[in-house]
Formats: sequence, structure tokens, C-alpha cells
Amino acid sequence: MSCNLTFWAHGSSELIGTCFLVMIVVGSGIMGERLSNDQAIILLANTLATGAGLVVLIWTFQGISGAHFNPVVSLVMWMHGTISKRQLALYVGCQILGGIVGTWIANIMFDLPAWELSQNIRDNNNFFLSEAIATFGLVFVIIRTIQVNRYLVAPAVGLYITAGYWFTASTSFANPAVTIARVFTDTFTGINFISVPIFISAQILGALLAFYYMQSLPQGQSKVE
Amino acid sequence: MSCNLTFWAHGSSELIGTCFLVMIVVGSGIMGERLSNDQAIILLANTLATGAGLVVLIWTFQGISGAHFNPVVSLVMWMHGTISKRQLALYVGCQILGGIVGTWIANIMFDLPAWELSQNIRDNNNFFLSEAIATFGLVFVIIRTIQVNRYLVAPAVGLYITAGYWFTASTSFANPAVTIARVFTDTFTGINFISVPIFISAQILGALLAFYYMQSLPQGQSKVE
Amino acid sequence: MSCNLTFWAHGSSELIGTCFLVMIVVGSGIMGERLSNDQAIILLANTLATGAGLVVLIWTFQGISGAHFNPVVSLVMWMHGTISKRQLALYVGCQILGGIVGTWIANIMFDLPAWELSQNIRDNNNFFLSEAIATFGLVFVIIRTIQVNRYLVAPAVGLYITAGYWFTASTSFANPAVTIARVFTDTFTGINFISVPIFISAQILGALLAFYYMQSLPQGQSKVE
Amino acid sequence: MSCNLTFWAHGSSELIGTCFLVMIVVGSGIMGERLSNDQAIILLANTLATGAGLVVLIWTFQGISGAHFNPVVSLVMWMHGTISKRQLALYVGCQILGGIVGTWIANIMFDLPAWELSQNIRDNNNFFLSEAIATFGLVFVIIRTIQVNRYLVAPAVGLYITAGYWFTASTSFANPAVTIARVFTDTFTGINFISVPIFISAQILGALLAFYYMQSLPQGQSKVE
Repeated sequence: MSCNLTFWAHGSSELIGTCFLVMIVVGSGIMGERLSNDQAIILLANTLATGAGLVVLIWTFQGISGAHFNPVVSLVMWMHGTISKRQLALYVGCQILGGIVGTWIANIMFDLPAWELSQNIRDNNNFFLSEAIATFGLVFVIIRTIQVNRYLVAPAVGLYITAGYWFTASTSFANPAVTIARVFTDTFTGINFISVPIFISAQILGALLAFYYMQSLPQGQSKVE
Repeated sequence: MSCNLTFWAHGSSELIGTCFLVMIVVGSGIMGERLSNDQAIILLANTLATGAGLVVLIWTFQGISGAHFNPVVSLVMWMHGTISKRQLALYVGCQILGGIVGTWIANIMFDLPAWELSQNIRDNNNFFLSEAIATFGLVFVIIRTIQVNRYLVAPAVGLYITAGYWFTASTSFANPAVTIARVFTDTFTGINFISVPIFISAQILGALLAFYYMQSLPQGQSKVE
Repeated sequence: MSCNLTFWAHGSSELIGTCFLVMIVVGSGIMGERLSNDQAIILLANTLATGAGLVVLIWTFQGISGAHFNPVVSLVMWMHGTISKRQLALYVGCQILGGIVGTWIANIMFDLPAWELSQNIRDNNNFFLSEAIATFGLVFVIIRTIQVNRYLVAPAVGLYITAGYWFTASTSFANPAVTIARVFTDTFTGINFISVPIFISAQILGALLAFYYMQSLPQGQSKVE
Repeated sequence: MSCNLTFWAHGSSELIGTCFLVMIVVGSGIMGERLSNDQAIILLANTLATGAGLVVLIWTFQGISGAHFNPVVSLVMWMHGTISKRQLALYVGCQILGGIVGTWIANIMFDLPAWELSQNIRDNNNFFLSEAIATFGLVFVIIRTIQVNRYLVAPAVGLYITAGYWFTASTSFANPAVTIARVFTDTFTGINFISVPIFISAQILGALLAFYYMQSLPQGQSKVE
């Protein structure tokens, strides 16, 4: 097929996939806030929607672009040689753009201003540690399950984030594109821009640790025996 | 086998499947309203029942009729050449009839009047955008996962609607037969008939967009690699 | 292997499996009542535990006895020629005994009297219709998914009951052995013995309708294409 | 590969896996307590995170060390001849250490003292019976599903514990390493050290019963037919 068609397929897949991912994260948070005052019930609904959405988005787009939807996943895939430097740039650009469009659509669907900045400064708790652990786990799960059985990546990621929303103090953003997109909504899932650098630096650290831990393991142990 | 047997199998499968789908949607909404006043908990229960029900209904009826249960899915399958024009008419008729019977049985099970009209005018928020996005996603998920692995269609649809109930402002009806059936119950999941045209026109638009986006992708990229 | 070993394997599998199933149904109802006053949250917990438990119990015991855990499922399997008349008697006996032992253990674990009679007369709503529909669906799902892929039976049954607890007015007992066992606990999931005959007769009717509907379908349509 | 590499792979896999398992159990309990006062909602969140986390951790580490994360599972695997005595010692040591580190990180993430002792004496209800049944079920599920299909072990364990948190009076610790780790947090999932011996002795008894019941079954019945 032509290079342009591949470019269109890869770019649109990462853009639309990340757009839907952020619509799901932000939209379900808004719906939760509208229907309940109980923070635990809102987070349960947010968790259910995000976990379910991730599984189906990855199954749907995996055969087109790999369904990264996450700059640190694309970074690790480039370090591993799965994608080229040019693809890395395309993917990260489309993920960030798709994520911001996702926030924009979620706001519009719920009749909120399309663009607003979150006032939610996330600085209580130990969020650097929290995001580093969350992203270490996410990236390690992805690079292991790809080796075991590619169909497992989708449920593995969905289930990991389902747990992550609850076991980490930061609710496991674990994704720089989603972190940036969440700056632009002042609702349940928003994050103030001054908290972004600490989140993204922790996410990069966690991803690199997962990559190097994976490298340290003997390769003959990759398959489920 | 004889033509009549196929006709019976296809028609009864779409009718009974859509009937159960609507019973699940409407019935779980009624049960939720009876047990709780918290709108978020009712929607959580409604989501859990609908998502679980969709998976099992599709696994059960997929080998008989394809388990569409949705006129816009049948429309896209006809455009793609999977079913004939005659089948399309049979399927859509049985889906609409089955859906209405489903509402009727749900009302009777819970000792409500068998037929009543919903008073719930759904016109707050941006419901045209919301249903168009919900249906675009649903139809794209279906036509992609059929190509990847037919067993994935059922969990993919169940998980998509699980997310959809929360991330779209309209709770993702995404199905004209179910939309029509929900006119006839004045309970949690009901919809007033004056809101129906905007929902169904958005659903058709979303389905067509999914079909044409799919057509734009290079076909060599269909499989999970 | 010897006949006695088969007898031991089949009987103990149906007895232990049905015992765990009832422990899960009754025990999670008691835990729910202890932790919350909200009927919807108790039913959500009861649903989650029962649905999850059914999947794992069927996967675990399916290769030993078929994992029926339900007299009307065994009845239909005998009508279909899968098990003999002698097996049918063994299975139904072990299911009823196992279920009663399950209630007994659940009561003891939670420091309740081992034996008590439920005061919960279930006669509001249309429970005959409700149980007939619930059991029709359950049995049809089982006999279809066995044909499609035996590994699907377990998640299909778990997801069906997850939906059934919410969409039917009777919360889908759909199982005479479990219905009898639930007479012996005066907690969330109990049922007064005077409600039992209507439940069991509806369950038998629903199972027979599922069997005859299955028989009416052309056999060439059994597989997921 | 060299012996040291295997030692590193096995040990780090059991240590990191058990560490994440305990972080998920303890962390989601803390998050639940912070967001809600309703014990049932906290336990629902704790259940969702633990069940989801177990599935993904087992899929991820199964091909490296077998993903036991549980001394009584390693004990039964040694009795069955799957691992050596030397491996058993390594596994149990890494599980206990990993669990304690997990509690430590969970406490730090949520800005609690890294080390504290739980005041929660768990002695109401019949907890010996409860843990023995919980562990019998868990171990039997694991040794059966390994025989049926190794990919099923992960969802089977996750779903079993999802049910177990609700149907047993003790919420199914079913794991000595996790039991010990939970001593060191005075939050929702903590356990006072004086309750530990009864929990661990019941867990060992339940595991042995599962092993001997498995041994009593005819081996020709191992597969899903």
C-alpha cells in the first residue's frame, strides 16, 4: 500500500483512539459528578468506564497502529525497535492532539465551555512516587503481554488501569497525552497545569524502569509455559 | 436447509435477542429505581446488566443470525454485502417488534401497565453530537472486531456500551430499535417520543461515518499482527 | 477408570460446586446486609460475587462433571442424551444436598444459626413469568454456547446471571437446587418455602421452552461463522 | 541461560508481583476509606481493584516464575513436583518480603507512616472455617485451571477472589504472605498480629485439603471435554 495510506491509517488510529480514550475518562467523570455527590461512587463509575473503554479501544485499533494512545508507550516501542523515529513523532503528535480534541468534545457533549483550565492542583500525597509506580506497572504489563499473546494486551491494560485508579494515590494517569488533555476541563478528572511536569517526569521514569527491568530478564522465559 | 427454516432462524433470533436486550435495559432500570434513589447507583446497575447482557446475547445468537439487534448495524452489514436487502427488511422489522415486546414484558414482570408513554424529554445537553459519536464508535468497533476475531465482537460491544452509558451525555442509546422500544415505558430508561427523531438521525449519521472511515483504511491492516 | 471413581468424581463435583455456588449467593448477601442499608448496593455486591463465582466454578468443574449445579440443566442434558438417567438422579441429588450444605456453611461462617427458615415471601410482582423467562434464557444460553465453544459456557452463564439479578423482577433464581437451599437462611437471599413451588414450576417450564426452541432451529447454524 | 539469571528472574518476579498485589489490596482500601464512609462501597472498590489486579499480575508474571505470589500455592506446587525445594524457599522468602515492601510503598504513596501496626483484631465470626474454605477453593481452582488451560488461571483467580471478598466472613485473605503484609498498615485492610496464626493455619489446612481432593479424582477427567 502507499506510504500516504499507512500514514493516514497510523495517524488517524492514534488520534481517534486517544480522542475516544480521553472522552471516556473526562466524560464519565462529568456524568458521575452530575449524578452523585459521593466521591467513591463517581470514581467507581469513572473506573468502570475507563477500564471497559481501554479494552475495546485497544482491540479495535491494535491491528491498525498498535493502539499505543500513550507517548511513553510509543517511546518504549521505539527503544525496542518496533516503530521508527518518524513513527514516534507522528504517534506522539497525534496522541496529544487527539487527547485535547477528546476533552473538547466531552465538554461540548455535556454543554460545558469547550475550553477551560482545571483548578485541581494535585499535590497532596506522594504523587511522583505514585505516577512512577503506576507507569512502571503499565509499561511492564504491556511489553510482557505482547510477548505472551497479543490479544491479552487489551484486557491486561484495562484491568491494570481499573486497579490503578484505586491503588495509587494519584489515580494512575500514567500517560502524558491524557495528562495534558485533562488540563483543559475543570471537572472531576481535571488537573491544574502546574501539577503536570511532576506527573510527566514520573511517567517517563516509570516507563524507562520497566524497559530496563524487562531487558534484565532472560529471554527464554517470555512465553506462558 | 429449507428457506423457511432459515427465515425462522434469522427472524426469531433477531426478535428474541432484541427482546431480551430491551428487557435487560428497561428491567434493570426499573429494578434500580425500586432499590435506590441515587441516580449514579441506578445507572451503575443499569450499566452492569446491559454490558453483561449484550456479551452473552451476542455469543448466543451470533451463529444463528449474526446477532445485530440494531437496525443501523444491519444497515451497515447490508452496505458491506454481508446480508441481502430482503434480510435487511426482515432483520429491522424483527428488531423493532422484538424491542417493543421486550418493553412490554419488562413492564408486566414488574407489575406496571404493559403500555405507557415515557414523559422523559431528553433535550438537555448536546444529544445529537452525543448519539452520533456513540454510534460511530459502536459501529466501528463491530466492523473492526469482526475482522480481527469474531469471538471478540461480543465482549467488545458489551464493554463499549459499558463505557458509553457513562461517557456520552445521552447514555449511548446508539440503536434505533432500542430507542423506539424505550418510548413505551415511563421508567428510568424511558424516552419521550418527541426526542426520538434527533436520536435516530444522529445514530444513522454515526453509523455511516464509521462505515466510510473503515472504507478509507488500507485493507492489509485488518488483522491483529 | 473404575465406575466407582467416576461416580465419586461426578457426585463430589456437583455437590462441592453447588455448595460453593450457594455459599457465594447466600454469603455475599449476608456480607452485603452487614455492611450497608442500601438495597441496591447489597444487590450489586451480591451480583458481582455470584457472577464472578459462577464463571470460576464452571471452569473448575466443567471437565469433571460438566458443572451443571442446576437440576433443570441436568434435565435438559438428559433429554439431549448427554447424561444417562442414572447420572441425572445422581446429579440432582448431589445438587440439592450440596446447596443445602452451602447455606448451612454460609450461616455458620457468619455466626448465624445453622438452620433457619426464611420469612421472605416473594409474591409481589409477576414472579412466575419472571422465573420462566430467566430460566428460558439461562438454559438457551448454555445449550447454545456449548455448541459454539465450551470455554464460553462459564463466562456466558456468569454474565447472564449478572444481568438476570437486575432485569427480572424475581432476581433470576433460575435453579431449583439453589431455590430450595435459599429456604434455609433468613437473610438477604432467603425465600419462604410457600413461594418455592411457583418458582420451581416456572423454572421447569422455561427450561423446556428453551430446549424445544433449540430443537426448532436448523442444526447447520450452530457454529459462529 | 545461567543459573543466576534464572534465580534473578524467579526471585524478582515473585517479589515484584507480590509487592504489586499487596500495594493493590492495601492502597485501594486506603483510597476507598478516603473517599467514602460506606463500608460496602469501600469493599466494592477494594474487590474491583484486587480482582482486576490479580488477573493482570498473573498474566504478566506467569511465564517468568509461575506467578504464585502465595506461599501455600508454592507449597502445593512443590508437593506436586512443579518446583524444587530450593525454589520453594526462594519463592516464599520473596513473597513475604515483597508483600511487606508493598504495604510500605502503599503507606508512603498515601502520606501515611511507612510502618504501623494494625489495630484490627479479626475475631468476630468463624474465621478459621472461613479462611480454610476460602483457601481450599482458591488452591483447587488454581490446580484445576492449570490443567484445563493455563491462560484461564489468571481470570479464574481474579474472579474467585472477587467472589471471596464477599462470600466468606473473613473476606478471603487466603494467602500467608499477604496476611503478614497486612499487619503493617492500620487502614481498611489491616489485621492485628494476634489474628495472624489462626488465619495462616486455616490457609495451610485449606490448601492441603484441595491438594488431596485433587489427588482423589481420576486423572482422565482433567480436560474440558
